[in-house]
Amino acid sequence: MMRIEIICTGDEVLTGKIVNTNFSYISQKLEDVGLSVRWETTVGDDRESLLRALRLAGERADAVIVNGGLGPTVDDLSQEVAAQAAGVELVLNDEWLARMEEFFRRRSRVMPPNNRKQAMLPATAEVIDNPIGTACGFALDIGQARFFFTPGVPRELHRMLEEQIIPRLLAKSGMQTAIVLKRFHSYGLGESHVDALLRGVEELVPDGSVKLGFRAHYPQLETKLTVRGTDTEDTRRKLAPVEREVRKRLGNFILSEDDATLEGVVLAELASRQGSLSIVETFTSGAIAARLAHLPGADTVFRRGVVARALGEVCAAVGLEGASATGELTRETAEAVARAARRQTHATHALAVLIDLDDGADRIDLGGTICLAIATEHEVASRRSRILGGREWVRLGAVEMGLDCLRRYLQNLPVYERIDFEKA
Amino acid sequence: MMRIEIICTGDEVLTGKIVNTNFSYISQKLEDVGLSVRWETTVGDDRESLLRALRLAGERADAVIVNGGLGPTVDDLSQEVAAQAAGVELVLNDEWLARMEEFFRRRSRVMPPNNRKQAMLPATAEVIDNPIGTACGFALDIGQARFFFTPGVPRELHRMLEEQIIPRLLAKSGMQTAIVLKRFHSYGLGESHVDALLRGVEELVPDGSVKLGFRAHYPQLETKLTVRGTDTEDTRRKLAPVEREVRKRLGNFILSEDDATLEGVVLAELASRQGSLSIVETFTSGAIAARLAHLPGADTVFRRGVVARALGEVCAAVGLEGASATGELTRETAEAVARAARRQTHATHALAVLIDLDDGADRIDLGGTICLAIATEHEVASRRSRILGGREWVRLGAVEMGLDCLRRYLQNLPVYERIDFEKA
Repeated sequence: MMRIEIICTGDEVLTGKIVNTNFSYISQKLEDVGLSVRWETTVGDDRESLLRALRLAGERADAVIVNGGLGPTVDDLSQEVAAQAAGVELVLNDEWLARMEEFFRRRSRVMPPNNRKQAMLPATAEVIDNPIGTACGFALDIGQARFFFTPGVPRELHRMLEEQIIPRLLAKSGMQTAIVLKRFHSYGLGESHVDALLRGVEELVPDGSVKLGFRAHYPQLETKLTVRGTDTEDTRRKLAPVEREVRKRLGNFILSEDDATLEGVVLAELASRQGSLSIVETFTSGAIAARLAHLPGADTVFRRGVVARALGEVCAAVGLEGASATGELTRETAEAVARAARRQTHATHALAVLIDLDDGADRIDLGGTICLAIATEHEVASRRSRILGGREWVRLGAVEMGLDCLRRYLQNLPVYERIDFEKA
Repeated sequence: MMRIEIICTGDEVLTGKIVNTNFSYISQKLEDVGLSVRWETTVGDDRESLLRALRLAGERADAVIVNGGLGPTVDDLSQEVAAQAAGVELVLNDEWLARMEEFFRRRSRVMPPNNRKQAMLPATAEVIDNPIGTACGFALDIGQARFFFTPGVPRELHRMLEEQIIPRLLAKSGMQTAIVLKRFHSYGLGESHVDALLRGVEELVPDGSVKLGFRAHYPQLETKLTVRGTDTEDTRRKLAPVEREVRKRLGNFILSEDDATLEGVVLAELASRQGSLSIVETFTSGAIAARLAHLPGADTVFRRGVVARALGEVCAAVGLEGASATGELTRETAEAVARAARRQTHATHALAVLIDLDDGADRIDLGGTICLAIATEHEVASRRSRILGGREWVRLGAVEMGLDCLRRYLQNLPVYERIDFEKA
């Protein structure tokens, strides 16, 4: 197993002024292709610490990714300290200098003199392309390890990592280099439940080339399959039976796959039938509408959203004067509100998510009762649910439940299926 | 200057499955009291790596904070590896065992046998109290450094760091231990602009005990003053002229101080005059309402929110039938919509934030024209603004601008003042 380390450099990261999402991004991307990070070091814009970090990593690792310190300012030290650690000179790279001048020319600007520093590279460096920025990536050997220097700007890092560095790491590791990552997004089942449901799916491909993983970000769970093979055809062939089995076992709980989102799926379902949507919310306070209505294409689908905290105000807003303004919240209330909202706005679909929040100060066992309904011209579907876990947990859970029930309705699936987060 | 290092341990952090916000939290808190982190290391749940990390830090640092690995499961290794690095035995701490048994008893549960492991501490360890969890903090010497072991659960870490560890670090550093952190939140001025406006405020206290810092999280900027002194009285005396000067220079742009939020200030202003609020939004899609309406106390203040993407639908929703449903968006339209929304819902105040988004695919120079208005029974205030920077930048900027203009109106400040983010 190849030993990989990451070194992050920069005062903004070291002082906690910015959270180090570049590190978690790199580490996840490597995990996704079957590589693992062993050790991570963060140092500031400090020559002595950076040199020490490079040398220590060069003694321990086979490959090291260094992030940051490639900018044009005096506190960007990576090229200089890399040259020192490798025992070589810094030399001007004429090709990169020309690239930078062209970069500024295309933006009708003159290159500031201090950008020249970005073309000074260690003499033994292999240039690693950065097609979208002026920071030149490079690789060189320090100690026993191959070092890869990457820019701190996230979109430049992401592209360089995926297009340039991961292929080099896979080649160096001798691993089969065709890799496919398949992702399923679900709502309503906890990580350990899904883990139990999927027990054994990896063994459908007996050679161990399929790896199952999870990433929980409440209320959604991401299930990941990483498949290695000799080429794209081989990975697809291996993936096919496993993804079929995952779809079968998780069934209606899969809300989208790969880069698709729940809100994107709902919008696409509505757009495909020239549908339109109105939403009525209470304690979720506009957060359901805010997931959908700003998206490209939503302007023709999203009709109207209404937010109110008092049930009487909700009824007034949708033209249900005098109705159930007081009294307990029921599924029937939600159904009446959804029907009225649809009628009032002439939308093809209306979603009402009404919440009765427990009284008192926020606490871990504070809960909410959720009554939601989806109305069309000819029918109405509804469900009632109770979620515990404090104000934020209830609010986030209700947003997801509302959108997911609408997704289920639009896909002709049962709107109600018991989920792990609700109390009986 | 005391050399401080942080070691984070755990596979979830090392693999990037969770973003390491514990590290940025610790580092910020230390910066806030005038201490600095020199070096950070992340290792997984791996005995050999953790031991190596402890020993290396023990050679370089004066103090080391270790985060994670104090849990009850077999992959939690911190106590055991700490004992090994310090060359001492692990011994059962009877007092902590009793504390844990009491912890479970108060929750009407029996302590699972594997929790006993959390009371096994290195023989030379000083116990550091964790009043809200079962993970026992502790301190001991390894190499030349004092090590502080802390739990990975964020709220347990936060409390232990502030109440137990920072005072010990300040005592060890010999620094004056009375510290006060004063924070100002603003909207509309960029970091470099505020930095220029505040030039020289630190020198109002000539002994160098006031430090100025910033933290930008678009669209808001946080300005921080850290003051050290011999005691609380001393820090207050030093802070007073500086905070007065900051308030004078940033003036109306300061939207709140310390833990107060923009939405909290708006709610409190409305509540103090028995006011009520209705909101009308377009491209912000409910995100303005979602900042306010779910907060404790908002149920009596927040009256109604309306979201629609089409101007005709906005007008229909507030009962402005036939009015300006087509044509260019103007301040007058926003004023008419705010007036109608207030009338319709009998709220004391109505805020309308209407946006005309540029056509075409998202791009860095895509902009939006924002017309916003605030109506009361007797008057209406409005402004027009243009923000560039892509869909998300416009959306987030408009949410903040809407709330901040309402804050200004409620505080009798000019609703319009030129901000750095808008284009003329």
